[in-house]
Amino acid sequence: MSYNFEPIGVVHSCFKDKFGVPRQPGLVSGALGELELFRPYDRGEAIAGLEGFSHIWVSFVFHQSIDQGRVDKQRLTVRPPRLGGNQRRGVFASRSTHRPNPMGLSVVKLERIIDCGAGKRLQVSGLDMIEGSPILDIKPYLPYADCINEAKGGYAHVAPEEGLRVQFSAEAKEHCLRWSKQWPGLEALIIAVLSLDPRPLYLRQAGERNFGVALYDLNVRWRNSEAGVAEVFEIIFMD
Amino acid sequence: MSYNFEPIGVVHSCFKDKFGVPRQPGLVSGALGELELFRPYDRGEAIAGLEGFSHIWVSFVFHQSIDQGRVDKQRLTVRPPRLGGNQRRGVFASRSTHRPNPMGLSVVKLERIIDCGAGKRLQVSGLDMIEGSPILDIKPYLPYADCINEAKGGYAHVAPEEGLRVQFSAEAKEHCLRWSKQWPGLEALIIAVLSLDPRPLYLRQAGERNFGVALYDLNVRWRNSEAGVAEVFEIIFMD
Repeated sequence: MSYNFEPIGVVHSCFKDKFGVPRQPGLVSGALGELELFRPYDRGEAIAGLEGFSHIWVSFVFHQSIDQGRVDKQRLTVRPPRLGGNQRRGVFASRSTHRPNPMGLSVVKLERIIDCGAGKRLQVSGLDMIEGSPILDIKPYLPYADCINEAKGGYAHVAPEEGLRVQFSAEAKEHCLRWSKQWPGLEALIIAVLSLDPRPLYLRQAGERNFGVALYDLNVRWRNSEAGVAEVFEIIFMD
Repeated sequence: MSYNFEPIGVVHSCFKDKFGVPRQPGLVSGALGELELFRPYDRGEAIAGLEGFSHIWVSFVFHQSIDQGRVDKQRLTVRPPRLGGNQRRGVFASRSTHRPNPMGLSVVKLERIIDCGAGKRLQVSGLDMIEGSPILDIKPYLPYADCINEAKGGYAHVAPEEGLRVQFSAEAKEHCLRWSKQWPGLEALIIAVLSLDPRPLYLRQAGERNFGVALYDLNVRWRNSEAGVAEVFEIIFMD
């Protein structure tokens, strides 16, 4: 027995690649995106009333896990980054993207509903989804049912502490200023994303090296110039 | 393009039928159930660490919507009971079970992990899922990401007010006492379920009639003996 679902839309995200995506929604409030709805769902009726809700649940597909052949239904455990990467936990005790059914679940802030002429789109923030993620469902966030103040969150009860102090080289600062005209809030976005330390755990102990985070159409290049610091040294437009 | 998901488990619920199921999770704390995990997920590894979390997200299939042929991808609106049943809202602005992809999403309380010899099961409460619902995924509830205190919930911001005052006939009281040995908390469960007024909206204005709610193996029979009252008059064991 299996169930077949067709996407009702697709995510357009400031995150173009997996590296740099916050591990949970809401960690980077400046992480913007749009939810494109496919026909016939792009018509106003399908989202009528949604404007009264501040947040929405997005059920989506971890399509990169599928594309990269990383869906292994027999793999029962993962190594949560929260636990330093050397302890195993059950896949159902984690939000890992590598799971038997590669389904993601994120609550995002609904900024506004955009009329693109051809149809409606939802502008959202606090995103942790990657460009191109297929959307399976959208539901309103219901505070009385979904916000459980007394809940205990195991090994991930509170948000991760910020990991890196972010600095810009003089050149990168200039680049940032230039691209901020096109993408307002760019500097704050870069700081928020890098401060979460997107490096995979096995690279955190390694020596200095260069990294690139794809934000919008930009490659934000940075290096761990000293311990606890992410230094952005250039921001390149990607064709 | 479409995506295929195989259930990783199945819901065993005190609710055997759609009629009576609370419209959201958490409304009836005494609504109990078990999540049966299929092989190989019933092995301890797949849920290791989950015991530290008080609540879990269950992604499941509204299988009755499929079985009853009620999935209509072209239907863009629903009539939320909250709005009296005569106003339409977009399907993505509602949690209706009739949606393009018939996927449900419920947060439930994890009471304990049961070892059934053959494998592990999760005992949960605050259920709004029906017996036999196929489970697609289980994820831990992360308070820092999922509990949004400032969220605004549109037309469904607060829990629905309780609709009915529940009374028991002398006979029903006796029945309840008898079956409470097998199902502790039965009386409180009946009161909580009926007080939410499970009647479909078109029947709320109708005259007195009999209703039956299937809880566990029992048919809880009741009638709207007077306005605002649900009178339980018998509780029958169903073979």
